[in-house]
Amino acid sequence: MGSILDGENKSSVDVLIIGAGPAGLMAATWFARCGIKARIVDKRGTKIFNGQADGLQCRTLEIFDSFGFADRVWKDSNHMIEICLWNPNEQGIIRRSDRIPDTIPGICRFQQVVLHQGRIERFFLDSLKEHSDIRVERGVLPESFSFNEAEAENPDAYPIEVVLQHLSEDEINPEQSKATANGAAGSDGLFRSNMAPDDTEELLSRASKNAKAGSRETVRAKYMIGCDGAHSWTRRQLGFQLEGEQTDYIWGVLDIIPITDFPDIRMRCAIHSANSGSVMVIPRENKLVRLYIQLTTTEKGGAPVDRSNITPQMILECAQRTLAPYKLTYEYCDWWTAYQIGQRVGSNFSKSERVFLAGDAVHTHSPKAGQGMNVSMQDTFNLGWKISSVLNGTSDRSILKTYQSERRRIAQDLIEFDHKFSRLFSGRPAKDVTDEAGISMDEFKAAFEKGNMFASGVAVDYGASIIVAKDGDAAKQGDGTAVQWRDSKRVIGKPELAGNIKMGVRIPSFKVLSQADGRPWHFQELLRSNGKWRIVIFAGDVSGKTQMARVQKLGQELAAPNSFISRFTPPGKLIDSVIEILTIHSARRAETEMHDFPEIFRPFSERDGWDYYKIYVDDQSYHEGHGHAYENYGVDPKKGCVVILRPDQHVSWIGDLEDSADMDLFFSGFMRAQK
Amino acid sequence: MGSILDGENKSSVDVLIIGAGPAGLMAATWFARCGIKARIVDKRGTKIFNGQADGLQCRTLEIFDSFGFADRVWKDSNHMIEICLWNPNEQGIIRRSDRIPDTIPGICRFQQVVLHQGRIERFFLDSLKEHSDIRVERGVLPESFSFNEAEAENPDAYPIEVVLQHLSEDEINPEQSKATANGAAGSDGLFRSNMAPDDTEELLSRASKNAKAGSRETVRAKYMIGCDGAHSWTRRQLGFQLEGEQTDYIWGVLDIIPITDFPDIRMRCAIHSANSGSVMVIPRENKLVRLYIQLTTTEKGGAPVDRSNITPQMILECAQRTLAPYKLTYEYCDWWTAYQIGQRVGSNFSKSERVFLAGDAVHTHSPKAGQGMNVSMQDTFNLGWKISSVLNGTSDRSILKTYQSERRRIAQDLIEFDHKFSRLFSGRPAKDVTDEAGISMDEFKAAFEKGNMFASGVAVDYGASIIVAKDGDAAKQGDGTAVQWRDSKRVIGKPELAGNIKMGVRIPSFKVLSQADGRPWHFQELLRSNGKWRIVIFAGDVSGKTQMARVQKLGQELAAPNSFISRFTPPGKLIDSVIEILTIHSARRAETEMHDFPEIFRPFSERDGWDYYKIYVDDQSYHEGHGHAYENYGVDPKKGCVVILRPDQHVSWIGDLEDSADMDLFFSGFMRAQK
Repeated sequence: MGSILDGENKSSVDVLIIGAGPAGLMAATWFARCGIKARIVDKRGTKIFNGQADGLQCRTLEIFDSFGFADRVWKDSNHMIEICLWNPNEQGIIRRSDRIPDTIPGICRFQQVVLHQGRIERFFLDSLKEHSDIRVERGVLPESFSFNEAEAENPDAYPIEVVLQHLSEDEINPEQSKATANGAAGSDGLFRSNMAPDDTEELLSRASKNAKAGSRETVRAKYMIGCDGAHSWTRRQLGFQLEGEQTDYIWGVLDIIPITDFPDIRMRCAIHSANSGSVMVIPRENKLVRLYIQLTTTEKGGAPVDRSNITPQMILECAQRTLAPYKLTYEYCDWWTAYQIGQRVGSNFSKSERVFLAGDAVHTHSPKAGQGMNVSMQDTFNLGWKISSVLNGTSDRSILKTYQSERRRIAQDLIEFDHKFSRLFSGRPAKDVTDEAGISMDEFKAAFEKGNMFASGVAVDYGASIIVAKDGDAAKQGDGTAVQWRDSKRVIGKPELAGNIKMGVRIPSFKVLSQADGRPWHFQELLRSNGKWRIVIFAGDVSGKTQMARVQKLGQELAAPNSFISRFTPPGKLIDSVIEILTIHSARRAETEMHDFPEIFRPFSERDGWDYYKIYVDDQSYHEGHGHAYENYGVDPKKGCVVILRPDQHVSWIGDLEDSADMDLFFSGFMRAQK
Repeated sequence: MGSILDGENKSSVDVLIIGAGPAGLMAATWFARCGIKARIVDKRGTKIFNGQADGLQCRTLEIFDSFGFADRVWKDSNHMIEICLWNPNEQGIIRRSDRIPDTIPGICRFQQVVLHQGRIERFFLDSLKEHSDIRVERGVLPESFSFNEAEAENPDAYPIEVVLQHLSEDEINPEQSKATANGAAGSDGLFRSNMAPDDTEELLSRASKNAKAGSRETVRAKYMIGCDGAHSWTRRQLGFQLEGEQTDYIWGVLDIIPITDFPDIRMRCAIHSANSGSVMVIPRENKLVRLYIQLTTTEKGGAPVDRSNITPQMILECAQRTLAPYKLTYEYCDWWTAYQIGQRVGSNFSKSERVFLAGDAVHTHSPKAGQGMNVSMQDTFNLGWKISSVLNGTSDRSILKTYQSERRRIAQDLIEFDHKFSRLFSGRPAKDVTDEAGISMDEFKAAFEKGNMFASGVAVDYGASIIVAKDGDAAKQGDGTAVQWRDSKRVIGKPELAGNIKMGVRIPSFKVLSQADGRPWHFQELLRSNGKWRIVIFAGDVSGKTQMARVQKLGQELAAPNSFISRFTPPGKLIDSVIEILTIHSARRAETEMHDFPEIFRPFSERDGWDYYKIYVDDQSYHEGHGHAYENYGVDPKKGCVVILRPDQHVSWIGDLEDSADMDLFFSGFMRAQK
């Protein structure tokens, strides 16, 4: 399990992850790829089998692809292509008023898809197994927590101590989850809903009564991540609060194979009826369709809803009223639930940059925009490589502050978006322009279209910090956390050199060809999540002697014995193991040879010879067209530029081929010299 | 194992497959998908781990995709994009003279790739496991064979009896294969080469000495397929011959990670040196490169080569001479072998359409064109669905004759191609136009380009028969086998209705959109290999009333209680279980509703409602462009047409929307009425 045994029932580990949902699994996946000793525990006895979250942003698919399993998701999932808007005509009968593309064309090589959470967890588990010995330990509950603040800045210390309780078979399989695992819709659909009480204390109290010898252990950890959901035990230990508000809007969810004459049942639909509430249609894999159905129509002060009244039949009847005159029934129901709409965000995302919170533990909102699971996974996608780089000694602890600065700001943006979106969705459509209590359908459509960019995940823009060299006020661009520069050595990149590469944002992807074999690759496919920083050299049109001379000079500087690449690479490691150089040139492929480029651009190894997978070209392919990468990235082929990418594909810095001193200064701001 | 036990060590099975290489595994895959009881045995104790065949035609990838695992091959393999031709300049120094695309652009959505045979066998084995209980039985040797000719035409008979010998652990792991499994290049690379003697008799004789009780069993089978390689035991039992010739050309093969300054080492290269022989470069997965290296330069009458002189070092030195002045060495060698070039084809591919031969058992040739494994798998891809349809009672036994007619003709074409290609490859390049003993490099390039179409596999064109309704002489278009029509009820399709859909050839693939959800699909992705015949209705522009009326009338005819679809579908089965209807229309998607089409085009089921996956449209997509399917298929949107596809995607018939009587006649030629 990656732990060092200190004695009976005592052990230590570099990172302890509480909770094996998508956020916890994403964190574990980073540690697996970076060779970090980590454990991940979950109080439940099994993973999810059906229902729960299912929408995947196109950015999430890019992230999955960087770990090598987006293809499995792409194959199994239902692809969301078009959104149809339905609302009442002048006679009050619903009709299709608009069609809009679901994923905005051109922003990503993937489109938004839908696949149930259980399948996604399966891909994570398979990936962990393939790349590490990290395994989810199920039926394991944290029981007590202590933290030695005095040791927080000591890199060798294990300031965290957690007692873990190992549950017995009976304890970890509550009645509800047994039923749900069968896909039987008659089971209690409200068992993981936010309308159900938390069962952690109950599990702990039952466990303590039955406690056997050896069922309790003490784990010391350098770092800990609480991915333990809306009722987060970890958050409660730290005494942090969720801030925000709850509404009285209640929505039901049905996962069914529909039998209906409604023509758009395989489209994503937003349906506002005149007086019978709203329905959102989310077509899914395996012929399933998810319906989100409004059960109450009052935002505040409505009569409290009796949980026991909420049944699949009752939810179906609401949907039938909204969809009339179309008919809707089903023979097969896979899952159902109900939830109350609210938006809340955590006051703090970390305790002394040693204990971190992620996912539902620090932000809750409505599920309809398909954001929850995505933003949760993206929290730990942001955090995992940072902790890894501190643990493996390449980065200073100061970069850990950027987690809260970057992700709490995203959570704040998310709940603001969700608040607006949910209200527009739950409101009654306006009868005409004078009906001010109603929702304007034009306003709804505009919000939907704008929301689509937000909801894609590719617009995430991290603020200035020691790892994002852009201009402006770092505190204002983040959540207010101090992410300053040491010794005021601030570096600011040159955005004008690459019009469509934005510092703070993930680099977009266009096709380039491998110089060595002519194969087309989407550039992002080359940016595997392995913890490496990357220097992307847009070498420009190297068929000109002047441009080639600039490239050669940069190569000499990067290859110098005292270059930053050399200083920050541990002795004995390959020269590309911390910072990797990738080159994209724009001369004709057939008139260029790989051996024309400096050797540090295509490093040599004794066993494998030269590296053939570092140099790419923006040229016409035989079978997949022309990527027009320079044009699409907004880089001038006569000039070129250099781009520094973080291990999570976000852009840190842009500069000229002559700016190697700035690159040195940038990396020196947070990296640790190795020799 | 899908067999019915008749008593101790006696059992019966529908199909017995001898040999679990790619041809045998492809056959087993069909039986797995069609629910046929089959066993597959192999004399070796393990599957292949490295070396062996590795080139995959783009048609083979289409076939893999129809079984759902092309994506795994595409991901793991090295993609072949460009071929570079190298030959001597006027000073006799090799230089790159040409670049040509490897796969001809536009013929296929895949390109030719390279992946070692062991990995491909892994995908077959995983697929068998996922879809059936058929498992390869290893260390099992056939020992004796008998065939009851009198029962050949009795559908209930098991006319084949084979005694199988189960080997012990020691017997099935000969020294050579143990060494090879480690990837150690020092082992005997000639152990599966055609220069090595067959070891079947030796294995049998060793086994009989050690025979334990119960290590022998008798299997009765309805059908049997010999996929047992060039030394085929099955072929010898039948007394069939391989006809053809052997040359004295010997080539060596090295799979290495090369250390070289040769610039095109990651390209497929054909290198002719002035006086030091030829080398073919095949870049592979995992940084490996395969080199085919000419060891002898005489076609006939050269001195016999001493096997013991052939070593990796000796092969490398030959390559170094050809590649000079470039340097070539290696640290890591994965595999090596040598082979003698010859082209031979079997006299018969079947005994009474009960015992069949496939793959190397009936055709051998040089490996350099990357054809062997492909043509072998395509043999059983042709055969598997035919045997399945006879066994499950939907087809008459007469269709089995088309196996030899279609595949022996392909084998004849293959060895003719290979004979020419090998000679051009092994010859010395001509010094100038007067050098008649030398090979003209222009002629070589022309042959290479022409060969590329052949080598893609998509040009395979089956002759007229009861299952290919094209004009002309059936015997001449095949290998001479009689594949006539019963009662002279011959149907001939109308090629002019679809200019780019050729009867006899596999249907090409273009993108179409799902009417129900707007998702783009490559049309071939809808043609899964599940044994179903398909009627593709090009409904045309159904926004016009006249055209829609024609479509409705066809729908009525197909849905009639006495229609051929109804007659050939077993009672109680879904109406699309034998013959599936797929529709592609060319009206605007947004102005068409699925419910506009006849219900038989989108059949209803009690549990799942209407089928949303049958109706497609040729229209612009949001994210993946416009497939222009009507234009690319050469179908007039004003008129439309109907195309009948075999279960292997080859085109049987093309006709008008009014030609349902011809469709009836066509299917009646070989299908069996179910009621």
